[in-house]
Amino acid sequence: MTDWMDRPLADMAEALHKGNVSAIEIAETAIARHDAWDNQLTAYKIWDADNALDQAKAADHALKSGNDLGSLIGIPISVKDIFGVEGFPIFAGSPKQLPSDWEKEGPVVKAVRRQLCVIPGKTHTVEFAFGGLGINPHWVTPRNPWDGENHRAPGGSSAGAGVSLYEGSAMVAFGTDTGGSVRIPASLTGNIGIKTSKGRWSTDGIVPLSSTFDTPGILTKSVADAVFAFEAIDAKSRHSTANIEAADIGDIKLGVTKDFFWDKCQDDIAAVVENTIAELSGAGMKTANVSLPEAHEAVEVMAGGIIAASEGYEFLSSELPEWLATLHPFVAARMNTGRDSSAFDYLTALRRVQRLWQRADAQLADVDVLATPTIPITPPIIAEVEEADVYRNTNMMTLSNTMAGNSLNLCGITIPVGLDKAGMPVGLQLLSRIHNDEALLAVALAVEAVIGTPAERLGSPPLGGSL
Amino acid sequence: MTDWMDRPLADMAEALHKGNVSAIEIAETAIARHDAWDNQLTAYKIWDADNALDQAKAADHALKSGNDLGSLIGIPISVKDIFGVEGFPIFAGSPKQLPSDWEKEGPVVKAVRRQLCVIPGKTHTVEFAFGGLGINPHWVTPRNPWDGENHRAPGGSSAGAGVSLYEGSAMVAFGTDTGGSVRIPASLTGNIGIKTSKGRWSTDGIVPLSSTFDTPGILTKSVADAVFAFEAIDAKSRHSTANIEAADIGDIKLGVTKDFFWDKCQDDIAAVVENTIAELSGAGMKTANVSLPEAHEAVEVMAGGIIAASEGYEFLSSELPEWLATLHPFVAARMNTGRDSSAFDYLTALRRVQRLWQRADAQLADVDVLATPTIPITPPIIAEVEEADVYRNTNMMTLSNTMAGNSLNLCGITIPVGLDKAGMPVGLQLLSRIHNDEALLAVALAVEAVIGTPAERLGSPPLGGSL
Repeated sequence: MTDWMDRPLADMAEALHKGNVSAIEIAETAIARHDAWDNQLTAYKIWDADNALDQAKAADHALKSGNDLGSLIGIPISVKDIFGVEGFPIFAGSPKQLPSDWEKEGPVVKAVRRQLCVIPGKTHTVEFAFGGLGINPHWVTPRNPWDGENHRAPGGSSAGAGVSLYEGSAMVAFGTDTGGSVRIPASLTGNIGIKTSKGRWSTDGIVPLSSTFDTPGILTKSVADAVFAFEAIDAKSRHSTANIEAADIGDIKLGVTKDFFWDKCQDDIAAVVENTIAELSGAGMKTANVSLPEAHEAVEVMAGGIIAASEGYEFLSSELPEWLATLHPFVAARMNTGRDSSAFDYLTALRRVQRLWQRADAQLADVDVLATPTIPITPPIIAEVEEADVYRNTNMMTLSNTMAGNSLNLCGITIPVGLDKAGMPVGLQLLSRIHNDEALLAVALAVEAVIGTPAERLGSPPLGGSL
Repeated sequence: MTDWMDRPLADMAEALHKGNVSAIEIAETAIARHDAWDNQLTAYKIWDADNALDQAKAADHALKSGNDLGSLIGIPISVKDIFGVEGFPIFAGSPKQLPSDWEKEGPVVKAVRRQLCVIPGKTHTVEFAFGGLGINPHWVTPRNPWDGENHRAPGGSSAGAGVSLYEGSAMVAFGTDTGGSVRIPASLTGNIGIKTSKGRWSTDGIVPLSSTFDTPGILTKSVADAVFAFEAIDAKSRHSTANIEAADIGDIKLGVTKDFFWDKCQDDIAAVVENTIAELSGAGMKTANVSLPEAHEAVEVMAGGIIAASEGYEFLSSELPEWLATLHPFVAARMNTGRDSSAFDYLTALRRVQRLWQRADAQLADVDVLATPTIPITPPIIAEVEEADVYRNTNMMTLSNTMAGNSLNLCGITIPVGLDKAGMPVGLQLLSRIHNDEALLAVALAVEAVIGTPAERLGSPPLGGSL
């Protein structure tokens, strides 16, 4: 029997629409895989199999009655517990349930629910999404399925998102990316992660961290799945007749840079990414050197934390003051930068990055994408980052390359391209100018055509995967 | 001989296009009127008659060659010295010329220069536009032409804008409105002033005070002139075939409110505005009570100064640090609120007003405009507001009703409707929901049709006016 959870999303959607499989059958498979793996992987904060089955029945009845509500009808989708989803509580990674106002759905979740997708649960997040490793001491830190021996970081803040895909309980996982929180968990679990252009997808209905940098995004198991889901979620794509197709290989110009992105990169990781760029070049893509010294300054400003922490701290103080007292020390330490900043510091930091946005936009004008390593280091073993200083340094190292994308106001994607010396997945990050989302995805499709899907390229991880 | 400066703008434009008058003739009239009145009125920081004549010649040659560059070709326009205008220095009301980067033109000035309008000079502004009375102790405070005895406040911060219209050296005057700086000088000099919706006209090429509240706008001598100029400047209108016409009187619903706007209003001013509303109602406009308690809170937050002062102080510190030391004490005292604010204070103030924007928008949904007094008090005699405390209180009183428009994110217009006991002009302020600019102007045209133009309604001021 076919396990639909291991097939392309487009095949699953086609089978559902043709009646070759029911939404109930798919939901039951997703539930069975969750039940088999949850003890080890713990991807979800909230899991509701009964609710999922009800959603699946609604999808099946709609399909049977000829009411095709969209290409995601019946598709299992996990949602980071930082989005409001009606019918589910929301904790945003905190120890205490948030007021029900935060359960209201924003446009992104509404877009998939209107299509009668199936949401079986809400995945773990770092507390208020403020951390790149995926650690949540209030609840549990999901297990990275790529290390069968040690509990390694799954990446964060969308800590359970990539794990839910590997577990097989979701075909698409919603996350949010403020400094890398979609791309990091995607890369560390061997998945695709899209960071949309700021403003492309609304952040309404999402507990905010930074109004300047927050972006919703998705994780999937292949670029093809990512494009399929993007086109079904994105309002502009839904109203367009043009489909996103793989760019012609000979037309693609990959930007490569010596600036910043390789400075802190482990040799083994750098080698995997360099070899992949050589492979893409060998297949016919052009490469061009790009100078991007702006990345260093932008990440320095963002890592200083004033912008996101000021916005995050002010939000919590104004809207959820009781939640300040229970912040885990790792998160509180970062939020306090915001408590202690002046308006001048905040506005100066904004001015600095906004000036860099314009310059970075110009620097990237002559290439389709900039190709970099997504994360410069192997994901740490959780037990080894329990000290505050070690946590802080490892967190910042993990975030540095993805943060360049947020702090320079770009869109981006991560694609798994190999394994490092520890056997952990290595991601190729493609960054592109703001509002260039479709072109970015067209290049990513072409990359996947050259190097294969993550499953083909990386094989199966020690944990997770098929039953 | 017709003095074109006292005729409607549309007539002047038509005569120029038909060749019944040349741009040079008009420029010469404008220069003659300036020369006759400048000693008394001092509207301009920079006056350049030679440059104006060159611009006029360019307009005449273009017209002669059949090259009609737009409806403002050959029209004299004064520009507040806070906008960059190429060929003119910029001081922004400070004691020292700004770097030439600030002379670059933004889209609004470009829009009129591309049409070959004639800019004879740049009008005085309060230092960095931070004040509502129009006082500039570094240079000079333009004289309000409506008091022949005393030097009364011309209104600010676009202090010379309204005066330039009365002098007869400009048909349109550019100003900027952050808390009322277009509407106040317009009202106090018996002119029309438009505060555009935030985002409608770009603030590029303008020395910023508050990125949250700054809006460019115009002053004119009648609503008809304002609409003519608005349509020629506004990009959306220029690309539209629809003209803004007076709304049908029977279709207009004027909102009236007991909240806030009348609290501090002098009895004589309140009576003039109330009588005007009664007159409009008698002419067939409907009135409806509007509850707008949000105005009180929004003005309280904005008058607290944290938002504008934080943005203004950060701008000066980052871009023009040498100009901080020479700030006049009146301006410095307000800027220092920004120096001393925390990021938390700033972001909380923003959150508070942004929440009020949504509520005010809903409260105004059932009326076309809200009708209020523009300014609740008689403009002070300059010599009587030289003490810091008196200045501060009088400045805030003057700003309070216009600030309600900025702090609630509305668009607005002021129309002169009578004289107060001191013989100074009284304005009717019409406020409307953001992006409702065209509908606001359509109502304003209907109001002018009922009550007459400012010249018809108010007569001539003791100073200024025709030669």
